[in-house]
Amino acid sequence: MSAWLDEVRWDDEGLVPAIAQDATSGRVLTLAWMNRESLAETAQRGEAVYWSRSRRRLWRKGEESGHVQRVVEMRMDCDSDAILLRVEQAGGIACHTGRERCFFLKLEQGKWVATDPVLRDPALIYGRK
Amino acid sequence: MSAWLDEVRWDDEGLVPAIAQDATSGRVLTLAWMNRESLAETAQRGEAVYWSRSRRRLWRKGEESGHVQRVVEMRMDCDSDAILLRVEQAGGIACHTGRERCFFLKLEQGKWVATDPVLRDPALIYGRK
Repeated sequence: MSAWLDEVRWDDEGLVPAIAQDATSGRVLTLAWMNRESLAETAQRGEAVYWSRSRRRLWRKGEESGHVQRVVEMRMDCDSDAILLRVEQAGGIACHTGRERCFFLKLEQGKWVATDPVLRDPALIYGRK
Repeated sequence: MSAWLDEVRWDDEGLVPAIAQDATSGRVLTLAWMNRESLAETAQRGEAVYWSRSRRRLWRKGEESGHVQRVVEMRMDCDSDAILLRVEQAGGIACHTGRERCFFLKLEQGKWVATDPVLRDPALIYGRK
């Protein structure tokens, strides 16, 4: 029952980019990466599971922070090489900086400006006091 | 005045993924790729310019179809390796299949199902009769 996984066009490293969008606000929260195993597990668990390229292991979103992303809907694009998740974001915080979303930098007059507030100190989120 | 371009973490091929989101509806329309030149030109023109990986050239979105994406806002994520454009989508069609968005495939009971209608025949959009 994994024919749908075969339809994904994985890149040379076996990955696809996956966008997480808040199902309520419509805000784009994160762009992360998935391999076949993480996409399969995402569908099975109903919670976003990514592949961490830096740590080279499965990354069950929220495993440390508690900020899991419950999947409401999974989509794929016309070229079969990108995934879109509509999610319910636990805690209202998707970013490791303690902000709602990772896309908190806005280009303003030739500079990237942080526009979103830190909702919770990452030291508290990750228990590093 | 290109310091902001230096802050982007380009991948080994000099690219970053760029998400286009409809500024009005909030729908995620496309995921495409940008190199430094295309990102610079996007900012300068105020219209989305991507890098076509298949054609290996700059791709001024809408150059053939007329379906340009006027950029309302440009954002970058916390790792500086993904771009988010909020756009006004000309013609209400982002996808080369003639649909509003490229993410028209939804996972339903283990199958990718096309959920969105074709708004305009691609043969008409691209003049191939």
